[in-house]
Amino acid sequence: MSQKKAILVIGAGDATGGAIAKRFAREGYVACVTRRQADKLAPLVDEIKAAGGEAHAFGSDARKEEEMVALIEQIERDIAPIEVAVFNIGANVRFGITETTARVYYKVWEMACFGGFLMGRETAKVMLPRGRGTIIFTGATASLRGREGFAAFSGAKQALRALAQSMARELWPKGIHVAHPVIDGAIDTEFIRTNFPQRYEMKDQGGILNPDSIADAYWQIHQQPRDAWTHETELRPWMEAW
Amino acid sequence: MSQKKAILVIGAGDATGGAIAKRFAREGYVACVTRRQADKLAPLVDEIKAAGGEAHAFGSDARKEEEMVALIEQIERDIAPIEVAVFNIGANVRFGITETTARVYYKVWEMACFGGFLMGRETAKVMLPRGRGTIIFTGATASLRGREGFAAFSGAKQALRALAQSMARELWPKGIHVAHPVIDGAIDTEFIRTNFPQRYEMKDQGGILNPDSIADAYWQIHQQPRDAWTHETELRPWMEAW
Amino acid sequence: MSQKKAILVIGAGDATGGAIAKRFAREGYVACVTRRQADKLAPLVDEIKAAGGEAHAFGSDARKEEEMVALIEQIERDIAPIEVAVFNIGANVRFGITETTARVYYKVWEMACFGGFLMGRETAKVMLPRGRGTIIFTGATASLRGREGFAAFSGAKQALRALAQSMARELWPKGIHVAHPVIDGAIDTEFIRTNFPQRYEMKDQGGILNPDSIADAYWQIHQQPRDAWTHETELRPWMEAW
Amino acid sequence: MSQKKAILVIGAGDATGGAIAKRFAREGYVACVTRRQADKLAPLVDEIKAAGGEAHAFGSDARKEEEMVALIEQIERDIAPIEVAVFNIGANVRFGITETTARVYYKVWEMACFGGFLMGRETAKVMLPRGRGTIIFTGATASLRGREGFAAFSGAKQALRALAQSMARELWPKGIHVAHPVIDGAIDTEFIRTNFPQRYEMKDQGGILNPDSIADAYWQIHQQPRDAWTHETELRPWMEAW
Repeated sequence: MSQKKAILVIGAGDATGGAIAKRFAREGYVACVTRRQADKLAPLVDEIKAAGGEAHAFGSDARKEEEMVALIEQIERDIAPIEVAVFNIGANVRFGITETTARVYYKVWEMACFGGFLMGRETAKVMLPRGRGTIIFTGATASLRGREGFAAFSGAKQALRALAQSMARELWPKGIHVAHPVIDGAIDTEFIRTNFPQRYEMKDQGGILNPDSIADAYWQIHQQPRDAWTHETELRPWMEAW
Repeated sequence: MSQKKAILVIGAGDATGGAIAKRFAREGYVACVTRRQADKLAPLVDEIKAAGGEAHAFGSDARKEEEMVALIEQIERDIAPIEVAVFNIGANVRFGITETTARVYYKVWEMACFGGFLMGRETAKVMLPRGRGTIIFTGATASLRGREGFAAFSGAKQALRALAQSMARELWPKGIHVAHPVIDGAIDTEFIRTNFPQRYEMKDQGGILNPDSIADAYWQIHQQPRDAWTHETELRPWMEAW
Repeated sequence: MSQKKAILVIGAGDATGGAIAKRFAREGYVACVTRRQADKLAPLVDEIKAAGGEAHAFGSDARKEEEMVALIEQIERDIAPIEVAVFNIGANVRFGITETTARVYYKVWEMACFGGFLMGRETAKVMLPRGRGTIIFTGATASLRGREGFAAFSGAKQALRALAQSMARELWPKGIHVAHPVIDGAIDTEFIRTNFPQRYEMKDQGGILNPDSIADAYWQIHQQPRDAWTHETELRPWMEAW
Repeated sequence: MSQKKAILVIGAGDATGGAIAKRFAREGYVACVTRRQADKLAPLVDEIKAAGGEAHAFGSDARKEEEMVALIEQIERDIAPIEVAVFNIGANVRFGITETTARVYYKVWEMACFGGFLMGRETAKVMLPRGRGTIIFTGATASLRGREGFAAFSGAKQALRALAQSMARELWPKGIHVAHPVIDGAIDTEFIRTNFPQRYEMKDQGGILNPDSIADAYWQIHQQPRDAWTHETELRPWMEAW
């Protein structure tokens, strides 16, 4: 078992998290995937296993410190050392400033940022003694700038970016690769299919991001030799205005 | 009384908030200053009154929604319309990522960002019907980039910057000037005097920021005609490395 | 005469350069204004003199090293020490990349950037022994990012910004205030009146920048005490999308 | 021959350009490499051929429009369609602002930026009718910010970045992938070995960039599916301060 290596994907409920888990599983990593309700992860785990990989689903609330601590302890103790950790929870809501309730503002931050802090800190703790590992926080357009209606979402994403920057500057020289890819465009998800059908029609032309393309980019980041690490990069469809 | 105009300074406990209050009071604004314990504001209020100005101190916890709502209602009802609102609460702490407790991470965000959201939203509500007003969020070096030890502080400050950007893009076209000056250097405060005495010695050469200089810059931002508004600017001592 | 101080405005042919010259002349500075043909500056000089100020017009090609050197020598020798220097030449052209000739690409850089280098270097030389002075390079939206059609213009403006940044980091600690205000919107000029009449109609609502507002901002930058200097700031109409 | 595809590397005189040429040659691309004196490219061409690849050396001055035009015509006519073009000429010099001659300022821009414009424009012309291709401009730390002593170099690099941004926004929607990787650290070159021996000692720990790592990153950029393209990314050794 000592040879096994795990990837932890916090927020594998959506297309992107799932694609990342499958990509790394294909390369031999044990995929440890989480979302609040573990049973919804069954299809993903089954798919990985059917392809010959190893996967474990965890029902875990990323916002709860004790759950995050327990999750990482359990994986390290029972499954394999966490070599890669990906924080992939978004909370894209849009409200004008006067319609943004304190509850929404807090919840978006708690979900899209505080959970990332917990994952980042706890995985740093287990990676530091090993002097190796990769921690990736998924960014979005709102990570780079605020816009009308995005006070809550952009606040959470910019705070997550600040976390990634601070951790990178502290942990790179200790051998841990912290990265912050910015996904700057619509991703091929049920959400886009339902809510932006016109946008979705551009899928066949590569007009929206394929989760597998994102997963490839994450794999490449993890594979980089340490003389040439990337902290921030961006992924965007060719047709996207920016 | 209908002619009076108020400036609200959230976090007037330090040198900067006090200097801003005095600067606007000198120009005829009623200074409404807050910190958690109102009695500590007595010297500031006395100083403004002694100079012929009007000032009111409020003990108010900026992190408590009901207190922020009540505060702004009270000022609008009993004192004067809020023409200018300044959010000036920092929470500069420094911890390595593995030493950052969940409590610290949350408290820093709550104080340096969530309070700003509450002030911003509530003052936007009263300014929007009037189609005018100025809302200023005080930024810091950490607003622009994370660094080792600053996961919590930079997270809060970048989230506050996202709030300022989002509000500016929504509210400028409605006549409300939202700005985010970045104070990129040590300010002449008791904290610097005590903890960075070598730095403090540069005071006489202009090596640390004078709160009155910051107050002047805030006054100028408020005075800008709307054909030439500033959203982000930076203030930094001439000797500062950057 | 030893008490006199000069402001040099390179590129005073347009509304902005003229407004800056008038603003500083009103404060007692001797306005030294240049453009390629001096005679076109007569109305500006007359206006300053009629208001009780002192002004001198110079026909000078900012792209010619020997002319820039001679200009600054002459002002320093015959008129007054240059306390403030403003580089205000733009060259806003728009061509798709395959339509951009080598000549255009070079000319735009020479005019909007190389001239700035010459002014910056030569004024730095006379200011350094005095340990004081202000050098301002006028930026534009294209200083911050390239866009379709702006390879040449954005290239020149971003290079000018690099110059301003490099000079600021070198010269601030020697007492010289180098600044780069970014004018991010249409300015009230003949060019906008003629080519963007719809835009121009928004003038009365403050929808385009008034050169006098820009001049005020430049004056404030020059007046900043050295404990709180600004390097980059932005000026933009309230109605501007950004 | 219609199946062959060429990569053009302008500035293959250094380690990075050579590594890129070899990397793409290994994948089946015909490497067309240039520097001012073609004979110095013989070892690179020999190495590629010895490994079973195809390579052609060109003595070509990237700053001369007619030479760039002829070069690209010749490759397209006699060798293969240019599928990838890389501009890799730097001109890293360091002078204080008052020591920067007009000649140096111009020459650095001409070499590190103007040549890039010529390559970008001419390759865009041949790629546009095909609706495909990759154009990469190599960036550096100075592409992101100016520093003391870097007025000339940072000016050229920021102008090149502006070119890359402008071309990307124009050409991505036409199928051409324009990218600007930023190499933010010392590269393993003779220059570093000689001038920064202490730095060079860190090579074995991955403290300086291996040109092969850069070449891998360029290959990955070229391989990206068009639903997930990168414009700007950064490569930096794990030990680098930033």
